Amino acid sequence: MAELELDVVGIGNAIVDVLSHAEERFVNERGLAKGSMTLIDMEQAEALYAEMGPAVEVSGGSAANTIAGVAALGGRTGFIGKVRNDQLGGIFRHDIRAGGTLFTTPAADEGPPTARCLIFVTPDAQRTMCTYLGASVEFGPDDVDFELVKSAKVTYLEGYLWDAEPAKRAFVQAAEAAHAAGRTIALSLSDPFCVERHRSDFIDLVENHIDILFANEAEITSLYQTERFDEAAARLNGKVEIALLTRSEKGSVVVYGDQRYDVPAVSLGPLVDTTGAGDLYAAGFLYGYTQGKDLPTCARIGAIAAGEVISHMGPRPEQDLPALVNEHLRNV
Amino acid sequence: MAELELDVVGIGNAIVDVLSHAEERFVNERGLAKGSMTLIDMEQAEALYAEMGPAVEVSGGSAANTIAGVAALGGRTGFIGKVRNDQLGGIFRHDIRAGGTLFTTPAADEGPPTARCLIFVTPDAQRTMCTYLGASVEFGPDDVDFELVKSAKVTYLEGYLWDAEPAKRAFVQAAEAAHAAGRTIALSLSDPFCVERHRSDFIDLVENHIDILFANEAEITSLYQTERFDEAAARLNGKVEIALLTRSEKGSVVVYGDQRYDVPAVSLGPLVDTTGAGDLYAAGFLYGYTQGKDLPTCARIGAIAAGEVISHMGPRPEQDLPALVNEHLRNV
Repeated sequence: MAELELDVVGIGNAIVDVLSHAEERFVNERGLAKGSMTLIDMEQAEALYAEMGPAVEVSGGSAANTIAGVAALGGRTGFIGKVRNDQLGGIFRHDIRAGGTLFTTPAADEGPPTARCLIFVTPDAQRTMCTYLGASVEFGPDDVDFELVKSAKVTYLEGYLWDAEPAKRAFVQAAEAAHAAGRTIALSLSDPFCVERHRSDFIDLVENHIDILFANEAEITSLYQTERFDEAAARLNGKVEIALLTRSEKGSVVVYGDQRYDVPAVSLGPLVDTTGAGDLYAAGFLYGYTQGKDLPTCARIGAIAAGEVISHMGPRPEQDLPALVNEHLRNV
Repeated sequence: MAELELDVVGIGNAIVDVLSHAEERFVNERGLAKGSMTLIDMEQAEALYAEMGPAVEVSGGSAANTIAGVAALGGRTGFIGKVRNDQLGGIFRHDIRAGGTLFTTPAADEGPPTARCLIFVTPDAQRTMCTYLGASVEFGPDDVDFELVKSAKVTYLEGYLWDAEPAKRAFVQAAEAAHAAGRTIALSLSDPFCVERHRSDFIDLVENHIDILFANEAEITSLYQTERFDEAAARLNGKVEIALLTRSEKGSVVVYGDQRYDVPAVSLGPLVDTTGAGDLYAAGFLYGYTQGKDLPTCARIGAIAAGEVISHMGPRPEQDLPALVNEHLRNV
C-alpha cells in the first residue's frame, strides 16, 4: 500500500450549523455580541431554537469548513473531530466525506448529541453564532489518529478547541506529533472572545508552537491587547513563521518575518452571509501553501475562496472553487 | 375562547429535504427519471445518500411547503403530518411552527425515522427526488385533527399521500369532514408517476370530491391519458370548480367552468432550483383565494411565489413574499 500523504489535516469541533435570517433587534435583545460566537448549553440551545425562524441545516465547524474548502480546491485532506451517532452526526460525517475528506474519528455511542451552532444572519450579512458543543466536548487525545496527523504537510487547529479540556490536550498532543514528524502546524484564533478566554495560553502557543497563524483584526488586537492593528502585526515578526491577518473588506495581510504583503479582498457579488469567511480564507491559503505557491498567491486564493462563501448562506463552498481560482488569478 | 378560524390546512407527508447539486450523468446512471419523484426504501436511501455530494437540509414535503408559503404570505395555517421524535422530526416541527403554522400532530415514538427526500439538482435547475417515506407511512386517520380541518376555509391535500394506505384513509376522512362542514377541498396531483400509480382513484376523486385541483402539464395529460394539454384542460370543465394547470415557463392556466385565463410565469432572476415551484404556486393561489381575490389575481400571486422559490436552492420561501407580491401586482 502506498504511504498516506495528505496536504492538510484539520482538528476541530464537528458541528452542524442551523442558519436563519434575523433582525438586529433579535440579536441585541438576547444580549448576543453581533459577529461573535457565544457558548450555550443544551437548555439555552433549545430555548433559542424555539425562538429562531425557519432555518436550514448545513455541516459546519470552523476547521471542518477549512478542510472542506481545501478538498473542494483539490487538496488531499483529513479531519479529526467528534460527533454522536445521531442524525446530525450522520449529516456531518456524510458531508465531509462526500467532499473527499478522510474522516475516521469514531462517533460517540452515548453522551450528549452532535454539536450544533445556531447562526443568526442579520440584514448586514453578519453572522452571530451560539454554539452548543454537545459531543464535541467528548473529544480527547484517544480520538486523534496520529498517523493521519503525521501524514499531512500541515495540521490545522481551531482556537475554539481550547474551550474544552480534553480537546485542548488532544490539540497539544497532535501538534507535538506533527512537529516531531517535521510537519507544519497552523492555528486559527477563531474569535475575539475565544482569545480573551484563553489569552495567555494562546500567546504561549503562538510564540512557541505555531508555524502559521490565522487571525482577524479583532482577534490579533485582542491577543496583544492593543487597539492598533499595525502594532499587533509587527509584534508577530519572529514569533510565527507566517501570519495571515484578515480585515474583512480591507483584504488581508501576510506577515513573513519583516516582510508584509497586503492582498485585496475579492467580491463575487452581493454580500449575503459572512459565515465561514475566515475558514475559507484559511482553506485557500493552505491549499496554495501546500501546492508550493508564493505567499501573496496563497493569500489571493484565500481571498477568492472567502469571496465565494460570503456570496451565499452557509459556511461551505457551493461554486466550483478551482474554476473560480483559475479565473481570478488570471485576471491579477 | 374565540373559535379557531384558519385559511388553509394542509395534509401531507412531513419530510426533510436533503439537497445537493448533481450532474445529469449521476441521475441517468441510477435510472432516475429526471424531474420526477421516486419512492425508495431505507436501504436504498442509505446507499444513495452515500453516493450523494455534500448537501444541505431544509424542511420540505409538498403540502407542507404550500402551507409554509401561505403562512409566509400572511395566511392563517395549520398542518397535519407525521414525523418521528428524532432530530430530523425536530427540525421539521421547528421550521413549520417558526413560520407561524399550527402543527400539533403527535410525533411517532417508535417505528421508522422521519421521512427524507434526497434531491438532486442538475445544472438545468431541474430537481429529481427520491423519497424515503419513513414515519410518514405511520400517518393515519387517528392523526387527523378534524377540528383543525373544519376550521379551515380550504383543506389542501397532496397526491403523494395516496402512496400509503393509512394516509389515504386519513385523506378521505379529512375530505369528508371538510365537506360536511361546508368547506373547500383542494388537491395537488403531485407527480406524473404518482398519477400513473393511482389514476383511477384520482379520476374518481377529482370528478367527485375535489373543488380545486392543482396539476402541471405532465400530470393532467397523464390523468386523462392524452398528449394534448388543451384537451386535458377542457376535460376538467364541470368536473372541478376550479383547476390550476401549471406549465413551467409558459405560465399557468385557470380553468373555471368554460372560462379559461392564461397567466404568465414570473421570473425573479436566474433559475437555480425548481424544487417547490408547484407547491409555492399553490400557496400563492390559495392565499389569494382565501383573501377573496379574483381568480387571475390568485394565479398571479401563485406565479410570484413560485418565481421566488425557484430563484434559490430549497423548497421554502426565503424572501419577503408579501413585499414581492405587492411590488409585482402593482406592476401588472
